[in-house]
Amino acid sequence: MSGRLAKWLPVLEWAKGYNGGLLASDALAGVIVTIMLIPQSLAYALLAGLPAEMGLYASILPLVAYALLGTSRTLSVGPVAVASLMTAAAVGKVAATGTIGYATAAIAMAMLSGGMLLLMGCLRFGFLANFLSHPVVSGFITASGIIIGLSQLRHIFGVGGHGETLPQLLQGLAANLPDFNTVTLVTGVLATAFLFWARRDLKPLLQRLGMTDTAAGFLAKTGPVLVIIVTTLASYLGDFGSRGVALVGAVPSGLPVFTLPTFEAGLWSELVVSALLISIIGFVESVSVGKTLAAKRRQRIDPNQELLALGAANVASGVSGGFPVTGGFSRSVVNFDAGAQTQAASVIAAAGIALAALLLTPVLFFLPKATLAATIIVAVTSLIDFGVIKRAWQYSRSDFIAVVTTIGFTLLLGVELGVLAGIVASIGLHLYKTTRPHIAVVGAVAGTEHFRNVERHNVITHRNIISLRIDESLYFANASYLEDYVYGLVADIDGLEHVILQCTAVNEIDLSALEALEAINHRLREQGLSLNLSEVKGPVMDALQKSHFLRELSGRVFLTHHQAVKALKADEIEPYII
Amino acid sequence: MSGRLAKWLPVLEWAKGYNGGLLASDALAGVIVTIMLIPQSLAYALLAGLPAEMGLYASILPLVAYALLGTSRTLSVGPVAVASLMTAAAVGKVAATGTIGYATAAIAMAMLSGGMLLLMGCLRFGFLANFLSHPVVSGFITASGIIIGLSQLRHIFGVGGHGETLPQLLQGLAANLPDFNTVTLVTGVLATAFLFWARRDLKPLLQRLGMTDTAAGFLAKTGPVLVIIVTTLASYLGDFGSRGVALVGAVPSGLPVFTLPTFEAGLWSELVVSALLISIIGFVESVSVGKTLAAKRRQRIDPNQELLALGAANVASGVSGGFPVTGGFSRSVVNFDAGAQTQAASVIAAAGIALAALLLTPVLFFLPKATLAATIIVAVTSLIDFGVIKRAWQYSRSDFIAVVTTIGFTLLLGVELGVLAGIVASIGLHLYKTTRPHIAVVGAVAGTEHFRNVERHNVITHRNIISLRIDESLYFANASYLEDYVYGLVADIDGLEHVILQCTAVNEIDLSALEALEAINHRLREQGLSLNLSEVKGPVMDALQKSHFLRELSGRVFLTHHQAVKALKADEIEPYII
Repeated sequence: MSGRLAKWLPVLEWAKGYNGGLLASDALAGVIVTIMLIPQSLAYALLAGLPAEMGLYASILPLVAYALLGTSRTLSVGPVAVASLMTAAAVGKVAATGTIGYATAAIAMAMLSGGMLLLMGCLRFGFLANFLSHPVVSGFITASGIIIGLSQLRHIFGVGGHGETLPQLLQGLAANLPDFNTVTLVTGVLATAFLFWARRDLKPLLQRLGMTDTAAGFLAKTGPVLVIIVTTLASYLGDFGSRGVALVGAVPSGLPVFTLPTFEAGLWSELVVSALLISIIGFVESVSVGKTLAAKRRQRIDPNQELLALGAANVASGVSGGFPVTGGFSRSVVNFDAGAQTQAASVIAAAGIALAALLLTPVLFFLPKATLAATIIVAVTSLIDFGVIKRAWQYSRSDFIAVVTTIGFTLLLGVELGVLAGIVASIGLHLYKTTRPHIAVVGAVAGTEHFRNVERHNVITHRNIISLRIDESLYFANASYLEDYVYGLVADIDGLEHVILQCTAVNEIDLSALEALEAINHRLREQGLSLNLSEVKGPVMDALQKSHFLRELSGRVFLTHHQAVKALKADEIEPYII
Repeated sequence: MSGRLAKWLPVLEWAKGYNGGLLASDALAGVIVTIMLIPQSLAYALLAGLPAEMGLYASILPLVAYALLGTSRTLSVGPVAVASLMTAAAVGKVAATGTIGYATAAIAMAMLSGGMLLLMGCLRFGFLANFLSHPVVSGFITASGIIIGLSQLRHIFGVGGHGETLPQLLQGLAANLPDFNTVTLVTGVLATAFLFWARRDLKPLLQRLGMTDTAAGFLAKTGPVLVIIVTTLASYLGDFGSRGVALVGAVPSGLPVFTLPTFEAGLWSELVVSALLISIIGFVESVSVGKTLAAKRRQRIDPNQELLALGAANVASGVSGGFPVTGGFSRSVVNFDAGAQTQAASVIAAAGIALAALLLTPVLFFLPKATLAATIIVAVTSLIDFGVIKRAWQYSRSDFIAVVTTIGFTLLLGVELGVLAGIVASIGLHLYKTTRPHIAVVGAVAGTEHFRNVERHNVITHRNIISLRIDESLYFANASYLEDYVYGLVADIDGLEHVILQCTAVNEIDLSALEALEAINHRLREQGLSLNLSEVKGPVMDALQKSHFLRELSGRVFLTHHQAVKALKADEIEPYII
C-alpha cells in the first residue's frame, strides 16, 4: 500500500530518509535558487506581457506542487522563457496586453494546460512526447530564443511596438528605433554588458581575488540581482520615471490570493490548441532537463508521473494567479550545481519567493523594464544553438529538413505554427521514407551463413533463386511499392524458379500488406515461380498463422535464409566483382 | 522524343497499332457501357443533389480526357456513388440544394479537385494514396454505401427530409415516412425488386431460354434501362405527376456548353479541404480498380500519370458543366467484361451519352425519381462489405480499430470526418506501435550461425554477453524507449561484459536515435560494459560513418552476429528449456 502510494507521491520516498545533512545542502541550494528566481520571475512575466507580480506568484505554489509529485529530485519548476513567449502568443490572440482579460486568459491557460497534463498523465500518454524529435525541439528553442531576444530589444531602446514573428519584430524595430530614449538605452546596454561579462568572467575574477571555488560560483550567480539593485537605485535617485524610462511600477504587495478561475467555455475553447502545444513543449523540455540531471546521479525519471506533477504545478499556478510553468533548464542546473539533494530545496526557494512577494514589492516600483529585458536577453542567448543545423546537415537530409522547417516556420509564422510544422515535417518525412523501403538483393558471404547486399559485398548467388531482403516493416503505406518492385524485378530474370523474401527487418505485416503478399504469391504462381519466406520473426509469424496466407503460399517458410537457399539452389553463380 | 511524349499521352501508344478488330470489340463495349451509363449518370446527379443533365455532362468530356491521358486501357471514368455523396456533403455546406449556387459550387468542386490532382501528378505525389490503408478504404466505402442507400429510401417512399449521417437519416425517415406516397412507393419497390432480381437471375433465365452466354450477359445489363423505360411509360400513361410522384422534370436538351467557371476565392477556399478529400478518395478508388483490371491482362498502371489523367477528367467535367468524376468499379468491370480493348471504347460511350443528351432528354421529363433511387440502392448494396470488419478482427487489433473508427465516424459524423478519422487512426496506430518496438534477447540456434529469441527458441547464450535484436528502425519516436530498455535490462545481470545490438531490423538511425545510442554507449562504458553492433546495414552504416559515434564506441561493429559472439564469448550457458 505504501509502495503504491509512494508511486503517486514520490515525496514519500525521499522524505522518509530525510536528515540534517540533506537539509543543509537543500537550504543552501534553495537560497541560491531564490536569488536567481526573483529577477527571472519578474522578467518572464514581462515577456509574457503580464504584471510583474504574476511572475512571483507562478514561482511559489507550483514549486511546492512539483515537490510533492515530481520524480526528479533536482528539477526546478516555474516560469520559463519559451513557455512565457508561447503564453504571450496565445493569450494575445484573445485579449489586448495590459487588460484584465489578458491576465485572466493567462491564468485560464495555466489551468487548461495543467488539466491537459493531468489527463495525459492519467491516460499514460507520456509516449506522445516522443513525437517531438530532438532536432525539432532544438530548432524550435533556437528560433524562440531569437524571437524572445529581438522582442526585448525595444525595452532596451525604450520604444513601443510589438510582434511575434521575425518580420514583424524587425519592421517594428526599424519603425520605432529613431524614437529611442537615451537614459533607457544607456541603462539597458550597461545592464546587458555587465550580465554578459558577469556570466563569463566574474567567477574567475573572484577566484583570482582569493575566493574559494564555491563562494565565487555563488557570488557570480548574484549578477542579475546586483543589476536589479543598482539600476533600481539609479532609477530612484536619478528620477528615471520623469525622464521617460519605463518602470515596472506599482506591484501589489502580499501573497497570491487563492482563487478558482471562472470557467468560460468560449475563452477555453479558443485557448485549447495553444494550451496543448504549451503542455507538450513544456513537458518535453522539462523531462529532457530532468533526465539529464537524473542520469548524473543514477536516478530515474518516470515520464507519466512527470505529466501528473507538471499538471499539478500548472493547476497550482492557475489557482494562485500565475501563468503556465514548466521545468526550466538554467534554473534546474543552478539548483543541481548548488548541491540540491531533494525537492526540499525547491520548497525552500518557494518560501524565499513568498517572502520576496511580501517584503520586496514596494522597491520594485523603480525597477526599469530595460533591466529585466537585459536579464532575458542574456538568458536566451544560451538557448540559441545553430550548431544543430550543421549536425543535422552532416548526418541526414531528413533531420536537416525537419530542423530548417521548424526554425523557418517559427521565425516567419510564430511559435505555434513553428512547433506544428516541425512535428508534421518530422513525422511526414519518417512516413515518407517507409513508403519506399530499401530492398536489397542478397547473396551469401563466402564461408558464412550470412547474406548481404550483392551491390555492397562479394557474395554468392544462384541462377534459379532471387533473394530479397526487405528493409522495412510491411504496412499499408508501402504494400503496393513492394508489389510493383517484385513484379518489375522478376520480369527481367531468365531461369528463375524461386523468390525468397528474407524477413529479418519485417517487424509487422498488416492487413493491407498481407493482401499485397497474397497478390504477389498469386501472380508469381501464375508465372511458375514459388514464393518463399525466411527468418520471419515470432510476432509476425503469429499474425500470419491467423490468416489463409501460409496455406496458400506456393513455397515454404524457412527458419534461416541459409536453409532456404540450401533447399532451393540449383547451380552457383560466381561472386559479383565489385 | 515520341517515347517521352507517349509517356505523357498514353493514347499515342495504343492508337499506333489500332485496327478494325480492336474497333469491333471497343464499339460493342462502348454501346453496352452507354446503356449502363445513362441511368447511372442521372442517378448519381440525383444523389449529388444536382439536376439530371449534369450527370450526362459529367459522362462526356471527362471520358475523352481520360482516354487521352490515362494509363488504364479499360477504366471507365464518370460520376460514381461515393464521390457524388461526398460532393453533396461538401457543396451542401456552402449552398442550399436546388439553387444555382449549389450547381456552381459543384462545378467549382470539379475544377478544384481536378486542379489538385494535376498538381499532385506534376509533383509525383502518387505515393500519398498509400496512406489510405485497405481496411480504411473498405470501411469507408461500406459506411458510405449504407448512408447512400438510406438517403435514397426517401425517394422510394416519396417523402421529404435529408441528412448526411446515420442518426440524421434515421430521424428524418422516422419523421417523414407516415406521409409516404402510395404510387411512388409501389413504383420504387417494384423497380428495386426487379433490379435485384435481374442482377442475379436474369442472365441464367435468358440462358435457359436458349440465348448464348454473351447475348444473355448483354441483355441482363439492360435491366436498369428497361426499368427506366417501363416506369417512364407508366408515369406518362398513368399521369404520375398529378398523383404526387416526384418526377425528374424538364431536362434541357443539347450538349453542354463549354464555360470557364468563375473563380471565387471565398467559395474555393471553403471547398478546398473537401476537394482534397474527394481527390484522394477518388484517386485511390480509381487506381485500385485500374490495377485490378490491368493485372488480369498483364498491363501496368502508372499512379502518377493517373493523377494527371483524373485531374484532366475533372477539369473537363468542370468546364462542361459537370461535377467531380473518378474511375468507377462497376462501370469499369462492365466495360472490361464487354470486351473493351482500349480507351476507344470510352470515347464511343462518350459519343453515346452525347447523343442521349441531344435526343432523349424530353422523354426523361416523366421519369420518376424513385426509379433512379432504386438504381442507386441496388448499385450500392455491392459496396457494403462487413466482411472487412471480421477479417481485420481476426488478423490484427490495430487494423480492426482503424476499420471500426472509419465506419463509426463516417456513419455518425459524415463522410469527410470519416475519411480523416480513418487516416489519422491508421497512421497514429502505426506510429504508436513503432514507439514501443519489440526487442528480443537472442541466442544461437544450435548447429547454425543463426540467432533467435531466447523465449521462442532453444538457443545458446553466454554469461558475459547480452545479445539484443531491435525489431524496429531507431528514430525520434522510440529513441528514449531503447535507452530505458537497455538501462533496465543491464541493471539486472551479473557478470555481464558486453552488450551486442543486432541491427538486422534497423533500417534507419536518425539524429535523435544517434544521440540515444551515444548516451547508451557513454552510460555502459561508465558501468564497465562494452557496446557492440552487428549486422548493421549498408545505408545505416553510411550514415553512422558521418558521425563521431563509431570513433567513440566502446566496443566494435561486426559484420555478422555470429562473429561478434565468437569474438566476445566467455563460457556457454545451457540452452533454455522451453
